[in-house]
Amino acid sequence: MATQGQVITCKAAVAWEANKPLVIEDVQVAPPQAGEVRIKILFTALCHTDAYTWSGKDPEGLFPCILGHEAAGIVESVGEGVTEVQPGDHVIPCYQAECRECKFCKSGKTNLCGKVRLATGVGVMLNDRKSRFSVNGKPIYHFMGTSTFSQYTVVHDVSVAKIHPQAPLEKVCLLGCGVPTGLGAVWNTAKVEAGSNVAIFGLGTVGLAVAEGAKTAGASRIIGVDLDNKKFDIAKKFGVNEFVNPKDHDKPIQQVIVDLTDGGVDYSFECIGNVSVMRAALECCHKGWGTSVIVGVAASGQEISTRPFQLVTGRVWKGTAFGGFKSRSQVPWLVDKYMNKEIKVDEYITHTMTLDDINKAFDLMHEGGCLRCVLALHP
Amino acid sequence: MATQGQVITCKAAVAWEANKPLVIEDVQVAPPQAGEVRIKILFTALCHTDAYTWSGKDPEGLFPCILGHEAAGIVESVGEGVTEVQPGDHVIPCYQAECRECKFCKSGKTNLCGKVRLATGVGVMLNDRKSRFSVNGKPIYHFMGTSTFSQYTVVHDVSVAKIHPQAPLEKVCLLGCGVPTGLGAVWNTAKVEAGSNVAIFGLGTVGLAVAEGAKTAGASRIIGVDLDNKKFDIAKKFGVNEFVNPKDHDKPIQQVIVDLTDGGVDYSFECIGNVSVMRAALECCHKGWGTSVIVGVAASGQEISTRPFQLVTGRVWKGTAFGGFKSRSQVPWLVDKYMNKEIKVDEYITHTMTLDDINKAFDLMHEGGCLRCVLALHP
Ligand SMILES: NC(=O)c1ccc[n+]([C@@H]2O[C@H](COP(=O)([O-])OP(=O)(O)OC[C@H]3O[C@@H](n4cnc5c(N)ncnc54)[C@H](O)[C@@H]3O)[C@@H](O)[C@H]2O)c1
Ligand SMILES: NC(=O)c1ccc[n+]([C@@H]2O[C@H](COP(=O)([O-])OP(=O)(O)OC[C@H]3O[C@@H](n4cnc5c(N)ncnc54)[C@H](O)[C@@H]3O)[C@@H](O)[C@H]2O)c1
Ligand SMILES: [Zn+2]
Ligand SMILES: [Zn+2]
Ligand SMILES: [Zn+2]
Ligand SMILES: [Zn+2]
Repeated sequence: MATQGQVITCKAAVAWEANKPLVIEDVQVAPPQAGEVRIKILFTALCHTDAYTWSGKDPEGLFPCILGHEAAGIVESVGEGVTEVQPGDHVIPCYQAECRECKFCKSGKTNLCGKVRLATGVGVMLNDRKSRFSVNGKPIYHFMGTSTFSQYTVVHDVSVAKIHPQAPLEKVCLLGCGVPTGLGAVWNTAKVEAGSNVAIFGLGTVGLAVAEGAKTAGASRIIGVDLDNKKFDIAKKFGVNEFVNPKDHDKPIQQVIVDLTDGGVDYSFECIGNVSVMRAALECCHKGWGTSVIVGVAASGQEISTRPFQLVTGRVWKGTAFGGFKSRSQVPWLVDKYMNKEIKVDEYITHTMTLDDINKAFDLMHEGGCLRCVLALHP
Repeated sequence: MATQGQVITCKAAVAWEANKPLVIEDVQVAPPQAGEVRIKILFTALCHTDAYTWSGKDPEGLFPCILGHEAAGIVESVGEGVTEVQPGDHVIPCYQAECRECKFCKSGKTNLCGKVRLATGVGVMLNDRKSRFSVNGKPIYHFMGTSTFSQYTVVHDVSVAKIHPQAPLEKVCLLGCGVPTGLGAVWNTAKVEAGSNVAIFGLGTVGLAVAEGAKTAGASRIIGVDLDNKKFDIAKKFGVNEFVNPKDHDKPIQQVIVDLTDGGVDYSFECIGNVSVMRAALECCHKGWGTSVIVGVAASGQEISTRPFQLVTGRVWKGTAFGGFKSRSQVPWLVDKYMNKEIKVDEYITHTMTLDDINKAFDLMHEGGCLRCVLALHP
């Protein structure tokens, strides 16, 4: 290929400063070094973690940077020593790496991987601790090891999931974050059994994916909790069969759920990122066995709390990152499940746009009607 | 028997008021009603829950009452419909009931039982919502459904574990609370696997039983944490192979343990009842899988807290009551294990006295050298 080994100049949305509109720039993308993969990103969605870092509230956020972590594309070229993918492969870049060699990967107990975290955590690549992005010579930080708001990006090979070549990239890009997070919270983290009662706090993409996961796991009561009554209509399609709006009740929401379910639910999921809802989600669980999973990401510095008696009497408090899925091993499996019509993806996409409209897309995220907005990068 | 169906007058230690010395009184113990068992208590130990309620800090504590919940004795008589025990049976009264019929017992997921809780929680018997104890006609409340600081007590049949008739009651009385709590926290709640690293906060009876449980489960590193250096010598006998005194470090204790163990322990246990230690115990767990079990009972109104990120990155927060053991089914099994020399009991008994010395025994609990003090009730 003509571009291989060359710097590619392409369009990317650069966050120059916190909370200032992103700017579409001509960005130079350096060739991949050893253990790296350069990907032509075809489609990317927006997720709340992008908005959180962009807002400036993330103390680990670095600017200028290229955000984005829910995407799909095609390998353009690979660096030295990369064996598992080659140019032309269809891939999903994953913010959770999977090296298969570190203490975490070998533990058999977690999907977290320690291999590239020290580099991705500070916006650079592991090989030389530098960025592959620049604008007129000025380096631009990477974000979450993915930076998918760019027509081309460079990622570590341990962060690339090779997927079915026929999978529609404009859809399966969602399998890079929100949908697997919700499904996996149910299947991997909570391990919900058939017949269980489930409460889901927050019916955005993540909460709806939890509902779908719970439905396929055979849960009988799936109670959705949201401040926005409009969410119930769409939530029904994903398996929610009861709806509670905390605004309709004077009692604390945990008490409402306990009363509804003769003592509490078997499993609850917090899919908002609100620490007081996290407490309610734990406390609405059934004494003796109820398990609550924190999926939402709270703002930095905030803390959860409860009386220890809640745990001594048998409730369990957990959390999940990327739904416990091992990225390189399991994202391709999720893509296949989608292609076999075993999991929904299309239904989460409420808006499609191009990269030029990215600021509009960020605005949309705050509207109740928006689940996921997918941007085409090479329209 | 001569006493069957009769009121028995015997000696008991009555807590007339919070924080006032117990008084040895002549107490009238009414005969057991339907579903009740009257037990001649031969030996009782003291536990911190007795001291806590006696101190007046327990908002649910009721006075006057007869405390005590770690004991062994012989059935004197049974009420109507009691089929599983009969006069002469050797038994351990259990503060956790096991009815085998309620939602909890049938769940297969917890050892908590809902059958008699509403009565025992308010110091009375289920049948007529009254106490079986009185002094000169004045009723005295029951405590934890056991009230073992009395030569005779009346308990619900669902709270009586029938044990091996040859078991030495002066020893196995300890299997009514502290020792099973620690063993079960490891075996049932955490399910520690061979090769695990374990941290135990607090090396009293409960913490030492955790150590023994961890050792039999094959844990490799068993790190004991206590403010009292003297605890390490005794703790070695129970399996603790490293000792950390928080006073010897400037860093927070969770950081000390994380540094010692290349990222944190696989399992931690809080056996003190201190909410800030509970936080440390969670935070010294390894990212990705570390599980922390709260065993200690904190004072009423106190709360635990942490950053939700601790859970989102894979740590699990749990608690345990009576170590997750089903009382009627499993206490006899623990007694057999003791008789087969598979678990320690004698080693926890540092003092023996008679009921008359009960106030001295309470004072002893605050001394570092005391693990369990056993009182003989019919010396
Ligand atoms: N753990 C992970 O790996 C992971 C991955 C992806 C996303 N997340 C997090 O999951 C969360 C949800 O993401 P999303 O894309 O579904 O968000 P979203 O904003 O689309 O959905 C949140 C929903 O919660 C509702 N809500 C807000 N406050 C509420 C309250 N107090 N009570 C009830 N409902 C309330 C909103 O109306 C909305 O429907 C975010 O915090 C995101 O950062 C976590
Ligand atoms: N969950 C249950 O079912 C259950 C059952 C029985 C007992 N308990 C509780 O377990 C706890 C322990 O009981 P025990 O009989 O072993 O108590 P104990 O008082 O004999 O032991 C506590 C130990 O903790 C140490 N300690 C105190 N503060 C400390 C600190 N900040 N850091 C490190 N070490 C510290 C003390 O030196 C002592 O060795 C109590 O809270 C008791 O109420 C719970
Ligand atoms: Zn995301
Ligand atoms: Zn790894
Ligand atoms: Zn006790
Ligand atoms: Zn029961």
